[in-house]
Amino acid sequence: MDFWQALEARRSVRAFDRERDVPPGMVTRLLEAAIRAPSAGNCQPWQFYIVRNQETKRALAQAALNQSFLSEAPVLVVACADPERSASRYGDRGRHLYYLQDTAAATENLLLAAVASGLGACWVGAFDEEAAARALELDSRLRPVAIIPIGYPAERSSSSTDRLPLDAVTKTIA
Amino acid sequence: MDFWQALEARRSVRAFDRERDVPPGMVTRLLEAAIRAPSAGNCQPWQFYIVRNQETKRALAQAALNQSFLSEAPVLVVACADPERSASRYGDRGRHLYYLQDTAAATENLLLAAVASGLGACWVGAFDEEAAARALELDSRLRPVAIIPIGYPAERSSSSTDRLPLDAVTKTIA
Repeated sequence: MDFWQALEARRSVRAFDRERDVPPGMVTRLLEAAIRAPSAGNCQPWQFYIVRNQETKRALAQAALNQSFLSEAPVLVVACADPERSASRYGDRGRHLYYLQDTAAATENLLLAAVASGLGACWVGAFDEEAAARALELDSRLRPVAIIPIGYPAERSSSSTDRLPLDAVTKTIA
Repeated sequence: MDFWQALEARRSVRAFDRERDVPPGMVTRLLEAAIRAPSAGNCQPWQFYIVRNQETKRALAQAALNQSFLSEAPVLVVACADPERSASRYGDRGRHLYYLQDTAAATENLLLAAVASGLGACWVGAFDEEAAARALELDSRLRPVAIIPIGYPAERSSSSTDRLPLDAVTKTIA
């Protein structure tokens, strides 16, 4: 798929075709896209949990303020971030900024790769991090920062979200 | 350009062709890509500064620990983030997490769009935020979070950065 088409076609998909699984090889391809994201000093402070277990999906849906569509997706990927991996090289700036930026860039790559693969996905940020960490039995170093349900969309995609016009969010210093 | 090609071709470019400017229309296209990034609750907590003024570029290069290649790029885009725009809807989770994630996702879109446009760019995170804010005369609400030099690459691109193998950064819960 053309890059610009993938960009335009990306939207939050929360309803998935229950009859159609996502093959492991496709998930691998999405994660290969994720880890191509830029990473300050190549610290790669990310860790991705691929969840297919129904009980774990349900626990994550509960952690996410009972957003039940999470347990109905064939696959959940939970993007986790390790602040100390970035801090080991950059101190506080790694610990408070870079680890989140790197992992967010990786998450965006994953979402675009999903679109380019004919899949739908959604960036879910509203969840209780401690409950999500418990559901995944995360090492205490890791912070879960995004839950991404992935599947074939159940319906034709809606129109994309309106944005503020570009001149409202840009300023030129000529 | 194909999405996967853009993804694979992205790398940090720090040397630019000084004879070749980047037309304003191209920068606009990159920013249109940036604002297609997902945004929690569509808060769009980003603001982009497009810098072509040589004095401002020099001040930003100084703010960035004297990374002089910044002042040699035809254009700098400074991605800024407004925590309060996300906090207005999501409280502390917006103020401490979403505003950075949204702006990082937008920055990644911009970098990929640069590749798809035949341009080179680089995500620079190492800078003194106060000095950068002064150089741009930023409103105190805004935090500069990435400086992105953009131009035509001066040389053939190097190979992409090695990453940890996927199984080192993923775990499957089947």
